Amino acid sequence: MTLDETYSKLLVKTDAKLALIVLDGLGDIATREQGYLTPLEAARTPNLDALSKDSAQGRMIPVAPGITPGSGPGHLALFGYDPLEFEVGRGVIEALGLGLELKGGDVAVRGNFCSLDAGGKVSDRRAGRIPTEKCEELCAILSRGLTAVGDTQVIIQPGKEHRFVVIFRGPGLEGPLSDTDPGREGQPIAEAKPENPKSVKQKKAATVIAEFYKKALPLLAKQHPANAFLLRGIAHQPHIPTFEERYGLRPAALAVYPMYKGLSQLVGMTKVEGPQTIAEQFRKYLDLHDQHDFFFIHYKYTDKYGEDGNFGAKVKAIEDFDAALPILMQKKPDVIAITGDHSTPCAIKGHSWHPQPVLLHSAYSGWDKLDRFTETGANLGSLGIFEAKYLIRLMQANAKMFAKFGA
Amino acid sequence: MTLDETYSKLLVKTDAKLALIVLDGLGDIATREQGYLTPLEAARTPNLDALSKDSAQGRMIPVAPGITPGSGPGHLALFGYDPLEFEVGRGVIEALGLGLELKGGDVAVRGNFCSLDAGGKVSDRRAGRIPTEKCEELCAILSRGLTAVGDTQVIIQPGKEHRFVVIFRGPGLEGPLSDTDPGREGQPIAEAKPENPKSVKQKKAATVIAEFYKKALPLLAKQHPANAFLLRGIAHQPHIPTFEERYGLRPAALAVYPMYKGLSQLVGMTKVEGPQTIAEQFRKYLDLHDQHDFFFIHYKYTDKYGEDGNFGAKVKAIEDFDAALPILMQKKPDVIAITGDHSTPCAIKGHSWHPQPVLLHSAYSGWDKLDRFTETGANLGSLGIFEAKYLIRLMQANAKMFAKFGA
Repeated sequence: MTLDETYSKLLVKTDAKLALIVLDGLGDIATREQGYLTPLEAARTPNLDALSKDSAQGRMIPVAPGITPGSGPGHLALFGYDPLEFEVGRGVIEALGLGLELKGGDVAVRGNFCSLDAGGKVSDRRAGRIPTEKCEELCAILSRGLTAVGDTQVIIQPGKEHRFVVIFRGPGLEGPLSDTDPGREGQPIAEAKPENPKSVKQKKAATVIAEFYKKALPLLAKQHPANAFLLRGIAHQPHIPTFEERYGLRPAALAVYPMYKGLSQLVGMTKVEGPQTIAEQFRKYLDLHDQHDFFFIHYKYTDKYGEDGNFGAKVKAIEDFDAALPILMQKKPDVIAITGDHSTPCAIKGHSWHPQPVLLHSAYSGWDKLDRFTETGANLGSLGIFEAKYLIRLMQANAKMFAKFGA
Repeated sequence: MTLDETYSKLLVKTDAKLALIVLDGLGDIATREQGYLTPLEAARTPNLDALSKDSAQGRMIPVAPGITPGSGPGHLALFGYDPLEFEVGRGVIEALGLGLELKGGDVAVRGNFCSLDAGGKVSDRRAGRIPTEKCEELCAILSRGLTAVGDTQVIIQPGKEHRFVVIFRGPGLEGPLSDTDPGREGQPIAEAKPENPKSVKQKKAATVIAEFYKKALPLLAKQHPANAFLLRGIAHQPHIPTFEERYGLRPAALAVYPMYKGLSQLVGMTKVEGPQTIAEQFRKYLDLHDQHDFFFIHYKYTDKYGEDGNFGAKVKAIEDFDAALPILMQKKPDVIAITGDHSTPCAIKGHSWHPQPVLLHSAYSGWDKLDRFTETGANLGSLGIFEAKYLIRLMQANAKMFAKFGA
């Protein structure tokens, strides 16, 4: 019996409510420039401090030692899906980020508008970074002129500046294919080729994309400077067992940014629209408390200010979160996990590989004698350093959702 | 995609310099007899203390929980090769220890001179531990009389007392074979048999060794007390992907003892001859700084005095190392890891299974709020307790050598 089968076999139905609260990019490092404090250490967090008093702590490796995850693998791991097993392509992530809803088997692709010279060579891979309005205009032209290729539906959605997304929806399609972006100017548009030449579905996707180019390029021929486009990250929506199948829990996703709504939908969570602030997200949790067993609550700003390298703003984002926390506690979930999907240290101005701190609270978590929730404290916690993919199993254990294994 | 394939795919070329500094057998335990201090805790180490201030710490499991590694598996693990996957036979380790250079496919064997009685039974498995000079004389007799068996070249090198090494170099050979040492007196010399009876290469090696005995025993017949020999640890040089293939780094090995030079050559490091002290090794690093990306610097004396159970000498060896450290810092590597290949506790007088402490320093390591580098401190560090085979991946992450995984 595999470990996953074992968990499934031991599963017991309970009325417990579980909340996974993700402060995106929460983890940080203590550097000389920051007075050897992390944002969590520098922030005033009376409510998190109070919660720490009855919680276990530890740190989580998002994917594997030394690997810096994007948001996709970071969240898949948190949701308990091994990100090395379930790979989500760049096109899919971009589509989710634009709020597009994907269906199983959809092939999603990132597009860049570009400039072609008279000889058919790419003269500017970003068409001079055309304004977003121009991109919207070009996407409208394509959408009007081209809604299908054979039995495959084509959905086009503009992004920022020269960027857009194409979804190919039809029977028998699969990624990944190679990019049509030649990678540098002075080369013609490349052919999208199957990564696995034996895959019939990838071959069909390649044919569909070649046909798409044939129909689309004439529609743009008179445009300037964006008279063509390059496709990258050609990937299909992976088939992932749903969260409910995996855990026996009815999950709701309370996220503000499209990317995280999309990632939660990949695993079949119910997307909740409306709330725009963490206080509103917590209030929505109160409203939905009886309708779901599991709540994924996503807070973006810790990552955003980490990416900016703005230590003060990351501290403030943690304090804002802390100030809203009492709303959640009005109907305290039986199990609360507070963590990040990865670290985004201010000193790095980007995602990193450093294990993120995690706080796990329940009637059965015990207290690790730590008065605050910080990276340095979490190093000493009873959870140790573990792979993020085990977090929900630990939450389930704390919800008494597993029977004893063996006698 | 496997984890190793993932690391390879994410690899980015940088100008970073990485230094892996191994204080052999560094780890220790705190016992009553030692005043509950480890040598690292008892030593005066101002330079290591200063470095700790901007470093992460943790402990590493050399092979697996409870397993005490020899120098071979200990170093292979440090170099990032799973020692359970890449087994290096005892004969190969002995050959490396004597400074012999092995080629791919060589079969290396430990030999012991022994005494045979008139009935052909082994009467002394070590021939009364003949002096080293006698061993050299016997090896010279064998080398003069026997340079090849069929198409297989034979290379014989004396060791200490009754010990020597034989290399069989020729086409189509492979280990492992069973020992010819019967294990106790009163038995005849055993036959070397293939471990895998289906292996054509092992069968050929067995034939070569049987033939070797037929030619060699008459050369020793009149010697006393060593008129024969036993062969053990019959193994071939394993095919190991080179360090440069695996990591995209150009490595140099700065070791004093032949064994560690040999182990670094197993993975294709450039062996640097000359330096005899840690100060000279660090000065050679300064000289070679621009010619390599990765420096393996090996310091033997912590292990040596641990093996002797000499606490004071192990403390002194650490202090000597510390005193030389400023030479390295004249051209500070971007990433520094300081650790052991295993623990050699004074109380055990030998290698042990205890996880060795590791200090990891870079601009992105952060500080774990630990003022010194010790076993007890390392227990509290952000690196946690991890398998030694991940160390170089963490060093590469700290050198920003990995692109983000997924979007």
